[in-house]
Amino acid sequence: MNSIQNGWFREVSPLWPSQCMSLEVEEVLYEGRSDFQDVLVFKSKTYGNVLVLDGVIQCTERDEFSYQEMISHLPLNSHPHPKNVLIIGGGDGGVVREVVKHPCVETVTQCEIDKKVIEVSKKYLPTMAVGYESPKLLQHIGDGFAFMGEHKGEFDVIITDSSDPIGPAESLFEKPYYELMKAALKPNGIVCTQGECQWLHLDLIKEMTSFCKTLYPVVRYGYCTIPTYPSGQIGFMLCSLNPKTKFNEPVRKWSREELEKLNLRYYNSAIHSAAFVLPQFVHQELRKL
Amino acid sequence: MNSIQNGWFREVSPLWPSQCMSLEVEEVLYEGRSDFQDVLVFKSKTYGNVLVLDGVIQCTERDEFSYQEMISHLPLNSHPHPKNVLIIGGGDGGVVREVVKHPCVETVTQCEIDKKVIEVSKKYLPTMAVGYESPKLLQHIGDGFAFMGEHKGEFDVIITDSSDPIGPAESLFEKPYYELMKAALKPNGIVCTQGECQWLHLDLIKEMTSFCKTLYPVVRYGYCTIPTYPSGQIGFMLCSLNPKTKFNEPVRKWSREELEKLNLRYYNSAIHSAAFVLPQFVHQELRKL
Repeated sequence: MNSIQNGWFREVSPLWPSQCMSLEVEEVLYEGRSDFQDVLVFKSKTYGNVLVLDGVIQCTERDEFSYQEMISHLPLNSHPHPKNVLIIGGGDGGVVREVVKHPCVETVTQCEIDKKVIEVSKKYLPTMAVGYESPKLLQHIGDGFAFMGEHKGEFDVIITDSSDPIGPAESLFEKPYYELMKAALKPNGIVCTQGECQWLHLDLIKEMTSFCKTLYPVVRYGYCTIPTYPSGQIGFMLCSLNPKTKFNEPVRKWSREELEKLNLRYYNSAIHSAAFVLPQFVHQELRKL
Repeated sequence: MNSIQNGWFREVSPLWPSQCMSLEVEEVLYEGRSDFQDVLVFKSKTYGNVLVLDGVIQCTERDEFSYQEMISHLPLNSHPHPKNVLIIGGGDGGVVREVVKHPCVETVTQCEIDKKVIEVSKKYLPTMAVGYESPKLLQHIGDGFAFMGEHKGEFDVIITDSSDPIGPAESLFEKPYYELMKAALKPNGIVCTQGECQWLHLDLIKEMTSFCKTLYPVVRYGYCTIPTYPSGQIGFMLCSLNPKTKFNEPVRKWSREELEKLNLRYYNSAIHSAAFVLPQFVHQELRKL
């Protein structure tokens, strides 16, 4: 296995050339190839169990909560009454876990292309896969494009929890996918997608912002910190069909007691707003578009 | 040289056990030992020239601006009229470069213990060492403790741009150092120190917050993102002797034109405020103190 050498997993990719995050491995728990990608799960020395797809870290038990909470609650708390939510990807179950925390959400439909990811997550990432126990969940194994093509105007919020734009997820960063999501939304619907890192992929973020603005009246890029994603952070592309949506002003604010009860460890109302405040080098590029 | 193997520099440290950032090396530019520490400068494939002290990355040409701007302008733009600024450490010159951008600053005193760091920075990090050309600069080579002991009540702002709490900088994260800075401040003075990473060093940040609150009426922790610091971010501990200081509300707001003129690439007024908005797991720990 190339990615583990001398007891360390190394995350090398052309998406972040000549830089690399490494984690020390305690034990390889699973290794195989699904119909779509290489799947690896290892127990790390200090980050708990780690899921790796095609050589890229998808989540670790230690820090996954920041990404899962933010990709879920940024869009859901920007929508006044989200009832029907679609998750594309998210095979580890963490986004399902977060979305079902909202009492107003009645159904969560998940469309994951790779059932092997769900299987290994149920076995090795139980704190994420706990989402799969929810009675609100409708699970579909298949391609997100095909699924949305058959479900027009059905969802209040669509969350795309995908890997990077190399391999099976490549087309999820392109305009036709955003057109398909638009068609699958109910009026005033919102989409939120994994939006890559502003320090590494600003050109891609600019391109996505540009084509999203031709489709949706409101488009914003936000981000959160997470140690085991490349360069320690990850972004989100949020689009709304409701011209009145202000993504940086949550319509639902949780009290300290509610945050505790919902076991939120990264998200709060203040960080919801702050997620959209961008460093000057990003702000000045995106404001022109 | 242990830290470079097979053409990659690996940043291994007990401060971030079992995780490691690596950068691919194009060429080693300098390698030696000063009176205080191992000094390495290499040209990386994608992050420009990199300064490493005792095996830990101090700055890279590609992303240093976020740290240098934030550690400088967070305290300076929280002070209504900073005239005399002291920098402890900061041997690469980047903080000096930022501080002298403020027209209201009349003198910048730098106390750096290791003249070798200044020498190599002048040679290999010219975009940082440009700060050393300022006529506002008074440079002192020596120990920060000794220097502050001899300069009581002289400074409006003290910035500590140090390495991590292992090796020569260890004592800079302890209470006696904060007492010494307090004595070196003028009335209503402000200090800002490198404050480590909230994902890695929350216990240290809690401890520092606790003892700082026994010395200063206003204490806040903020942070910025920076790919080549451990886990992709770094924090700042800010303390003010002025009980009216609100660190999250800058007293000086720069327009877009001013930001461009001052060549600010990370800092702006909105990110100044957002820097103090903490993830819930940090917020709930620090608010109790």
